[in-house]
Amino acid sequence: MEKLNLLYKAKAKEFYATKDPNILVVHYTDDATAFNGIKKATLVDKAVVNNKFTTMIYNILKSEGISMAYIDTINETEQLYKKVDYIPLEIICRNVIAGSCSTRLGIEEGTKPTNAIYELCYKNDELKDPMINEHHAVAIGLATYEEIDIILNLTKKINEILAPKFTKAGLTLVDFKIEFGRTADGEIILADEISPDTARVWDSETKKKLDKDRFRRDLGNVIDGYREIASRLSEVINHE
Amino acid sequence: MEKLNLLYKAKAKEFYATKDPNILVVHYTDDATAFNGIKKATLVDKAVVNNKFTTMIYNILKSEGISMAYIDTINETEQLYKKVDYIPLEIICRNVIAGSCSTRLGIEEGTKPTNAIYELCYKNDELKDPMINEHHAVAIGLATYEEIDIILNLTKKINEILAPKFTKAGLTLVDFKIEFGRTADGEIILADEISPDTARVWDSETKKKLDKDRFRRDLGNVIDGYREIASRLSEVINHE
Repeated sequence: MEKLNLLYKAKAKEFYATKDPNILVVHYTDDATAFNGIKKATLVDKAVVNNKFTTMIYNILKSEGISMAYIDTINETEQLYKKVDYIPLEIICRNVIAGSCSTRLGIEEGTKPTNAIYELCYKNDELKDPMINEHHAVAIGLATYEEIDIILNLTKKINEILAPKFTKAGLTLVDFKIEFGRTADGEIILADEISPDTARVWDSETKKKLDKDRFRRDLGNVIDGYREIASRLSEVINHE
Repeated sequence: MEKLNLLYKAKAKEFYATKDPNILVVHYTDDATAFNGIKKATLVDKAVVNNKFTTMIYNILKSEGISMAYIDTINETEQLYKKVDYIPLEIICRNVIAGSCSTRLGIEEGTKPTNAIYELCYKNDELKDPMINEHHAVAIGLATYEEIDIILNLTKKINEILAPKFTKAGLTLVDFKIEFGRTADGEIILADEISPDTARVWDSETKKKLDKDRFRRDLGNVIDGYREIASRLSEVINHE
């Protein structure tokens, strides 16, 4: 499908129109950003690696019946997506406490609670994506209580599908962030990637960070980390 | 009941032991604090006014079947409380957006959402009482999911009892903060006051602030505001 005009530029992706008003081309870029865009860089091969990684994750989730905007991967850096109305919420699922959650709760990074933690953030650059809850989301008209229930149940299901596969690969899916959208007929579907850009993944034994924290915290070899997650995970998938 | 040794000094209250290990004396003080104790003052008559005010509120809630630590008022500045294990959560109920919620959501103070907003904060001075959600609370062992359900349902019921009485008095119960505790046999009960120290109350027509925001924002006549709420509310109660 031919790529037409640029519709929207996200932090590490560009969205293009196609001849079909219901289908977009998502183009991965080599851009890396952190701290709400304050830290920026270009990382060689990031687009190719993330395109491949997200393709793998989307296919796992699709085979488990998760509805999603992702349709197909069309070349080394591009995918086709259904057009959706994005819900301006970031849903974070945490299996292990790290990052802002560690600071908020005054708990050491790496602590594993008995329950998974779900957080809602209001996607708003000006307000710096503040953490909110379902009552705030309803009050400001982002979603209904029923939609938020659906979103949280889908997030839980996605975590239950993915986390064990990471474990089998000797990796810990520490946390991930996802976004949802509404289709034209009102269905709530997964509308954004799960990748080392948007998740924390550690080696289960050494606790070595293999995700975007390598960039955020200047640990070096960022894309090597991404590649390692991909290769270990794909080995597990291929043997299932 | 005779007041024995001081057990604990809160921001505007002192808790004393009695001969009965299950009963405490709560002594209201004239202290006013704001911004996690950074701003401090002594306000003449505050103890007497708050003691009277909270007695009125506790009696309204008691008559509607809300279980509480409050037992009785014993003199101008003191009440008897059942001893409970405090749950280190502050539950905030908001009928109108104000204060930190206005900042968090980027919404003008005074906006009235269609739903009441409930927030949980982790009562922890060092961390500055951060907003959390039920998953965090469970993860750090503050309460179980079932206990948080009970707490939120009690908060909703308390709001549904009180807010209409404020409305009848020409007042708006903008928001309030409460705390809960566990009795020896595990019942979750209301364990802290609702007063102009812990609630926002505005004149419904003029929007004049009559609560502790008069102190926080240097608006003057703080205790006059508290007295006005008390007198208007008690008139409504006495005519019911």
